[in-house]
Amino acid sequence: MPYDRLDSDVKMMKEAGINVVRIAESTWATLEPQEGTFDFSHIDRVLAAMDKAGIRVIIGTPTYAVPAWMVKKHPDILATTPQGQYKFGPRQNMDITHPWFRQRAEIVIRKLMEHVKDHPAVIGFQVDNETKHYDTSGPAVQAQFVAYLQKTYPDLQAFNKEFGMDYWSHRIHSWDDFLSVDGTVNASLAAEFARFQRQLVTDYLNWQVELVKSYSRADQFVTQNFDLDWRGYSYGIQPRVDQFAAAQKMDVAGVDIYHPTQDQLTGTEIAFGGDLTRSMKGGQNYLVIETQAQGFPEWTPYPGQLRQQAFSHVASGANMVSYWHWSTTANSIETYWRGLLSQDFQPNETYLEAKTIGADFARLSPQLVNLKKENKVALYFSNQALTAFNAFKFGWTSQEEYNDVLRPFYNALYRMNVETDLVDSSSRDLNRYALIVVPALYSASDAELQRLNDYVRQGGHIVYTFKSGFSNEHVKVRATPQPGIIEQAAGIRYSQVTIPHNVALRDNPYGVTPEENQARWWMELIKPTTARVLARYDHPVWGQYAALTRNQYGSGTVTYLGFMPSDTLIGAILADEVKQAGLWDKAQALHFPHIVRQGVNQQGKTVRFLFNYSSTPTSLSWPWPDGKELLSNQNVKSNQMLSLPAWGVLIIEAL
Amino acid sequence: MPYDRLDSDVKMMKEAGINVVRIAESTWATLEPQEGTFDFSHIDRVLAAMDKAGIRVIIGTPTYAVPAWMVKKHPDILATTPQGQYKFGPRQNMDITHPWFRQRAEIVIRKLMEHVKDHPAVIGFQVDNETKHYDTSGPAVQAQFVAYLQKTYPDLQAFNKEFGMDYWSHRIHSWDDFLSVDGTVNASLAAEFARFQRQLVTDYLNWQVELVKSYSRADQFVTQNFDLDWRGYSYGIQPRVDQFAAAQKMDVAGVDIYHPTQDQLTGTEIAFGGDLTRSMKGGQNYLVIETQAQGFPEWTPYPGQLRQQAFSHVASGANMVSYWHWSTTANSIETYWRGLLSQDFQPNETYLEAKTIGADFARLSPQLVNLKKENKVALYFSNQALTAFNAFKFGWTSQEEYNDVLRPFYNALYRMNVETDLVDSSSRDLNRYALIVVPALYSASDAELQRLNDYVRQGGHIVYTFKSGFSNEHVKVRATPQPGIIEQAAGIRYSQVTIPHNVALRDNPYGVTPEENQARWWMELIKPTTARVLARYDHPVWGQYAALTRNQYGSGTVTYLGFMPSDTLIGAILADEVKQAGLWDKAQALHFPHIVRQGVNQQGKTVRFLFNYSSTPTSLSWPWPDGKELLSNQNVKSNQMLSLPAWGVLIIEAL
Amino acid sequence: MPYDRLDSDVKMMKEAGINVVRIAESTWATLEPQEGTFDFSHIDRVLAAMDKAGIRVIIGTPTYAVPAWMVKKHPDILATTPQGQYKFGPRQNMDITHPWFRQRAEIVIRKLMEHVKDHPAVIGFQVDNETKHYDTSGPAVQAQFVAYLQKTYPDLQAFNKEFGMDYWSHRIHSWDDFLSVDGTVNASLAAEFARFQRQLVTDYLNWQVELVKSYSRADQFVTQNFDLDWRGYSYGIQPRVDQFAAAQKMDVAGVDIYHPTQDQLTGTEIAFGGDLTRSMKGGQNYLVIETQAQGFPEWTPYPGQLRQQAFSHVASGANMVSYWHWSTTANSIETYWRGLLSQDFQPNETYLEAKTIGADFARLSPQLVNLKKENKVALYFSNQALTAFNAFKFGWTSQEEYNDVLRPFYNALYRMNVETDLVDSSSRDLNRYALIVVPALYSASDAELQRLNDYVRQGGHIVYTFKSGFSNEHVKVRATPQPGIIEQAAGIRYSQVTIPHNVALRDNPYGVTPEENQARWWMELIKPTTARVLARYDHPVWGQYAALTRNQYGSGTVTYLGFMPSDTLIGAILADEVKQAGLWDKAQALHFPHIVRQGVNQQGKTVRFLFNYSSTPTSLSWPWPDGKELLSNQNVKSNQMLSLPAWGVLIIEAL
Repeated sequence: MPYDRLDSDVKMMKEAGINVVRIAESTWATLEPQEGTFDFSHIDRVLAAMDKAGIRVIIGTPTYAVPAWMVKKHPDILATTPQGQYKFGPRQNMDITHPWFRQRAEIVIRKLMEHVKDHPAVIGFQVDNETKHYDTSGPAVQAQFVAYLQKTYPDLQAFNKEFGMDYWSHRIHSWDDFLSVDGTVNASLAAEFARFQRQLVTDYLNWQVELVKSYSRADQFVTQNFDLDWRGYSYGIQPRVDQFAAAQKMDVAGVDIYHPTQDQLTGTEIAFGGDLTRSMKGGQNYLVIETQAQGFPEWTPYPGQLRQQAFSHVASGANMVSYWHWSTTANSIETYWRGLLSQDFQPNETYLEAKTIGADFARLSPQLVNLKKENKVALYFSNQALTAFNAFKFGWTSQEEYNDVLRPFYNALYRMNVETDLVDSSSRDLNRYALIVVPALYSASDAELQRLNDYVRQGGHIVYTFKSGFSNEHVKVRATPQPGIIEQAAGIRYSQVTIPHNVALRDNPYGVTPEENQARWWMELIKPTTARVLARYDHPVWGQYAALTRNQYGSGTVTYLGFMPSDTLIGAILADEVKQAGLWDKAQALHFPHIVRQGVNQQGKTVRFLFNYSSTPTSLSWPWPDGKELLSNQNVKSNQMLSLPAWGVLIIEAL
Repeated sequence: MPYDRLDSDVKMMKEAGINVVRIAESTWATLEPQEGTFDFSHIDRVLAAMDKAGIRVIIGTPTYAVPAWMVKKHPDILATTPQGQYKFGPRQNMDITHPWFRQRAEIVIRKLMEHVKDHPAVIGFQVDNETKHYDTSGPAVQAQFVAYLQKTYPDLQAFNKEFGMDYWSHRIHSWDDFLSVDGTVNASLAAEFARFQRQLVTDYLNWQVELVKSYSRADQFVTQNFDLDWRGYSYGIQPRVDQFAAAQKMDVAGVDIYHPTQDQLTGTEIAFGGDLTRSMKGGQNYLVIETQAQGFPEWTPYPGQLRQQAFSHVASGANMVSYWHWSTTANSIETYWRGLLSQDFQPNETYLEAKTIGADFARLSPQLVNLKKENKVALYFSNQALTAFNAFKFGWTSQEEYNDVLRPFYNALYRMNVETDLVDSSSRDLNRYALIVVPALYSASDAELQRLNDYVRQGGHIVYTFKSGFSNEHVKVRATPQPGIIEQAAGIRYSQVTIPHNVALRDNPYGVTPEENQARWWMELIKPTTARVLARYDHPVWGQYAALTRNQYGSGTVTYLGFMPSDTLIGAILADEVKQAGLWDKAQALHFPHIVRQGVNQQGKTVRFLFNYSSTPTSLSWPWPDGKELLSNQNVKSNQMLSLPAWGVLIIEAL
Repeated sequence: MPYDRLDSDVKMMKEAGINVVRIAESTWATLEPQEGTFDFSHIDRVLAAMDKAGIRVIIGTPTYAVPAWMVKKHPDILATTPQGQYKFGPRQNMDITHPWFRQRAEIVIRKLMEHVKDHPAVIGFQVDNETKHYDTSGPAVQAQFVAYLQKTYPDLQAFNKEFGMDYWSHRIHSWDDFLSVDGTVNASLAAEFARFQRQLVTDYLNWQVELVKSYSRADQFVTQNFDLDWRGYSYGIQPRVDQFAAAQKMDVAGVDIYHPTQDQLTGTEIAFGGDLTRSMKGGQNYLVIETQAQGFPEWTPYPGQLRQQAFSHVASGANMVSYWHWSTTANSIETYWRGLLSQDFQPNETYLEAKTIGADFARLSPQLVNLKKENKVALYFSNQALTAFNAFKFGWTSQEEYNDVLRPFYNALYRMNVETDLVDSSSRDLNRYALIVVPALYSASDAELQRLNDYVRQGGHIVYTFKSGFSNEHVKVRATPQPGIIEQAAGIRYSQVTIPHNVALRDNPYGVTPEENQARWWMELIKPTTARVLARYDHPVWGQYAALTRNQYGSGTVTYLGFMPSDTLIGAILADEVKQAGLWDKAQALHFPHIVRQGVNQQGKTVRFLFNYSSTPTSLSWPWPDGKELLSNQNVKSNQMLSLPAWGVLIIEAL
């Protein structure tokens, strides 16, 4: 802070209804200015002020940015990656497996925990922050990886065979000869190393959780601030963390979600990040640990958008909405990553709107927190499939990745108001879903595919895309006809693929525009065995092959998409599938920009959030039974016309 | 292979008419799993199976991918280049001059040769594969380069002067001070180093050839699999190998050729690669050691294309068409570089079409192999000119390279059915050609240019493009008016150049579209001395200068192009030149997509291949004398109407 | 030179009227071929020939390219930068602070000076060439930087606070822990390092000047060849040198200026570079040490352009126009950076035109040299602001930099014939200007902003753009409302900013096209306090905020631009401002491509240069009093119609 303004800050926080703050994360150099010297005075001071004001505190362990004195003493704390060693300057540049880093991290966490654990204001702890493996791959990591391989693959010749080591003379006779895979062109090896690296993250987080829990009180929770694949904003599945695994030891899952605003605000990332985080711990409510207030300059919110975003988080099951950050740093890279306040600490339009959110939250929390959902549709993802898919994409020069396939399917469900859970390869309770959408499951074990076949046989509905089932869990392409084990449930086969040029669906079965009817990126030359053909390619040569099929298998069905459709076509295909699965309901009568989310609150009442994600005021007839609109405290009758302003929100609790 | 299927593979090969396979290349780690331990069992097993089936075998030396144990023991086997040292993982990353690499390579080659040389199935050997110098430039290579320079340029002051070393303070007083040229901005030095590096390749291949020949039988040949400049497919002259020099010690030249297919299939790369390889050893027939079967996903062939490709190779003089590869690897980078079979080993459409090729080859080989050509037109290239040209291109930000100039001239000849040899700076029998096209001969010795002048004087016709003759063999710009020694034969001079913007040919002399009439990339401000002006620039300022000239010199003519024309304009200019040279014939009455190739077979009969390189069925009147169409075994009368299906081929042997 | 042609060169130079040459720069390896061995014979020979011909000589110290023997002996002479160590090959790759480099440089300079100082032909010296710090940042530089920081910021805790070191755990407890800022994400640190690096340049140049002056005669001058930010041509403020500071010890400022020609020739870079260089030493005349003759191929001048360029330099106050270079090197990177002669040494069109310039200069010099200007408008720049601005630009993915903001404002003034000085943060005589344009003064001390406020209060007019005043001299954002201290004079405030999408000026106040009326890159949401709103944003949400304001403050005004206008809009806004400042005069009745420059010559007479910067001949009525056109020696009457050919120039001296 440029000057002592703690009292002013607390006062302005209180006025905005803020009741939790997160501190201490990334302050290692302040907590331990030199090795073994600790200074908790700034923490004490903030805790005292917050406690006095009745604001609760989440303490973050400070480990995701290392002090200069550590790097000075052991420069190899900065991780070495295939691109070389990191420089000092950014955060998240250390080798999280470095023994002395772990030793110093343990000491500072223990010291911090000893100091704060008993403070009444402290309600929980965040271990590290947005933890990943940072691509660490230096000699020490290589030694760990070889040890891991030796243990996992005790039969070296079997390893050579399974991983295709004969190719380009890579077969080894001794583990001593196993060289770094930094430069490998073998996706099997690269994916195995990525799997090992993701395990490093899980291990590291578990280690911190155990450390913290050895001090924390029973009424204090432990969380982590997970984040998503970053494309200038929170886009898709995080490739460097097995989040479902890493969340197991957390008491509650946390996430940061950033997204475009102004005319680009759609709520999709809020819903996607929320659905993902809620699913991490089986539908448990979660914390939005960071989201934007003013954010980047291009994200300065329009009036109403900050409110809409906050209630969208709650509508997805969030129990907290916390902004990054309170005010804005005057130096360094986040000068234009603006918090609720700019560097002038003046109440601006964004802060003023936040005050209304605080007031509403204070009043309505009993009816809004701990919202429970029972979704019947799930989106299936796999970090192993993601890694393997991205090793090949749609060809050596292709830019499209796994998340570019996955997100359009999520987006289509979102836009038709089909609320969705996420499941991953570790999920075992698939039968609770009527419909599972499985994009690009490129690498999967026989057992995993068999589980999905079983799910269908027992009555489930699956939509698969192209490339699913193609390779096994070691990214070895199956030696059977494709799509491998899926064939049994999908009732199709293919042996050849190509890239579509001027290929559409014959006879435009979904009645979209000619451009929307085009195939993009990939196409499989499918021959149905038992499947019914829903669509064929329109092309002078490829016209004999099926593009889209549906197969009855046991009590369920598999719909198989051999190509990447346009966004609109995905919507049409999934709408058909939702109907097929018997899930088409009142919410589907609405459509983006009218977004509906619903759940059951602590009082056992259904709460429905209705959003207008557009700049155009709108109105609609309320299709559900009578209820009460909570923000206005007005009763709503079934079929009553409701008005929604630009970027407006209504919250209607059933009577 | 995922399971033991050698017998099935051999059976399917036989059914497809495959009679030669290539093995052992890039299997060093399998042949020699640890230093000094050898295992030839997999080779024995394959040789036995092939021999039993009557399939002949080419054995590749395994040296183009080094085993991990070698890199582990001597990490500096991985070459250091101006971009740093290679990582382990890819192939073709070693320093081919490394003494221990050469020592181990010699041992493994000797062991392999001892083992296989007497096997009856082995008909020949391939030394290494797609060998290049891999940009090796580390300290050991630098020492060799300095030794080379000292020997080549015994007078250090003359070297300083010739190479312009005064510039930017680079003059040296002692060879001890001669530093690596990795960072040089002096194209004279860079080109000399490139010349030295290309010599390393020739020396390395010659060394392997001698090694292999010290074992091989008289009835066994030695070849190398040359490749072309790669632009996602085989594009142009290979910059890193002097292929004409490197081919001298080979018994037969080999090549790999990859190219786009589907709607982009034109046959141009097949013809270009074939003409180049056939010319390497003075018109001798050659081997297509690798070409695509299914290839990349975007190359999955349309029905008929695999046949068309195979006969196009034969039509260029190939005596073998061999696919990369039989089936498709289940792991690593070539997972989508598909062979005749996909990973499922099922007979697919491509394999089924290959079977028809095998049957036709088996039946027609006596009439198709050893096809001889006597072309009257040659395309002149120079690796030295290529290197030097690419150092400057058309300016510091230009993307167009030497091959971007050369290929459009080749393409135009191809499209007008003018069959072409390639000649390079080492060629001495130019007089056999009536017309030589010389694009961008940017660096050439006085003697080389004098040879070309002599060729014209004695009745030859040359088409030169811009920049030819500009600098000498050390990339030192001539101190005379340009185009230097060429002036004498071309009858023109220029002292200034510029880049064309909105410059066309005045009065559109070739009657093309306004866009096709534009100059691109480069223009020389030509003043004719004795030459006749065929076209002038259309531009308010540059209109006074000649763009295209023709000069009588002795009994021949030189046509000089001062600018880069559009593709269409190149076609028109070359057509005029072909007529000028008295070469316009019946084949030129046809035009792409009707492609005609011809030669004389072992029976002394003229064989003409007629291709329809398009998706549209077509028909034409046969302009040559009566013959027999070999595929259908039908007689064809002169002037008879012939039908060609999409991607169709006819092969007509004169009676 | 390819052969001995000194006499021919001197003869051709004389015929072209060349009376000064520059030699010896970058010839260290020739002067000192091995350590401690010196050879001045080539200098002696050239000096003798020039002296005999009456051509004067400027001697350059040879230090900007180091000999190979130096790099061989001490490889760390090649500077290490954040991107690694430079390779040998290019020039300007040494660490200018390296002790042995400095030692050897001192010796060679002393030897050279001893040798040439008394030669009658030598009129002056150039120290080094286009000197910059070349991003040197290796360990030795780091040690110097830490020493600099320790001295500049004796209070470490204050340093931590001012530079925001708490952020991401970068606070240090001891200077020993201060690590390299090569990888920093903290713009405060990065800008401080850049400031330190620019000081290295000043120190190095001062050191050379003192060395040279310890030998030179009173009648000999010392200069440096400054250059501009390079965008393929001389574009904007040079980021790596504080040119106003570095020029202080020079007797005369020198510059190189390169620019597009042919249809892209506008004269803007000639004027900008000239105005900058003239301003370096308070309006003193300067030397154009390098500019293009033929230049790049795309710059081959149209007839008339070389003359127009030469007189444009003189019109800006240049006392010399010198070409890079006489002839063209036959080897290395500048083969296509052509001098007056090509490599053929033939008189070409460019040389022939140069001869007419030489003749005119010889005749008219008494009336053209030492032209004095009294400009009333200044453009204010700051290297500190440039560095800081470029650390953030308009967002993490923005490409637009400080010079992209500054140049359009300069261009607009140029095109309306408002002659302009440049002032920087060190300038203290602002009151001589009626109007100062201040683009993007992103980082400035309180005192600097206060000086600008004072200037306005005392009657000055300022146009500020967005982002001015935002951060202090350490790139710490001010904790006050924005634009900080400027608020007092500008009468506005803002707390929020955004990026404009579809934002125009409401009601199109300047009557431009809809496209020209758009805001680009940045917009501040301005609330006026005392300012008058000149324009508001046209946008459904942002329409309430001011875009452009004007405020009376004391006797002056501040116009504040909250957004980046189109080029046309900048012209309209600045035209309004010029009128407001009472500066609208006859020259403004003309407009580009009619360019007018004026000054007072040694005879005390006003000389006006009138240029037609277009390919279209034109005519206009002479708006000034009677005078004499010097090139034609014809009298011109007021209001007489004057004709200007394409790329024509008239020089009219008032009677």
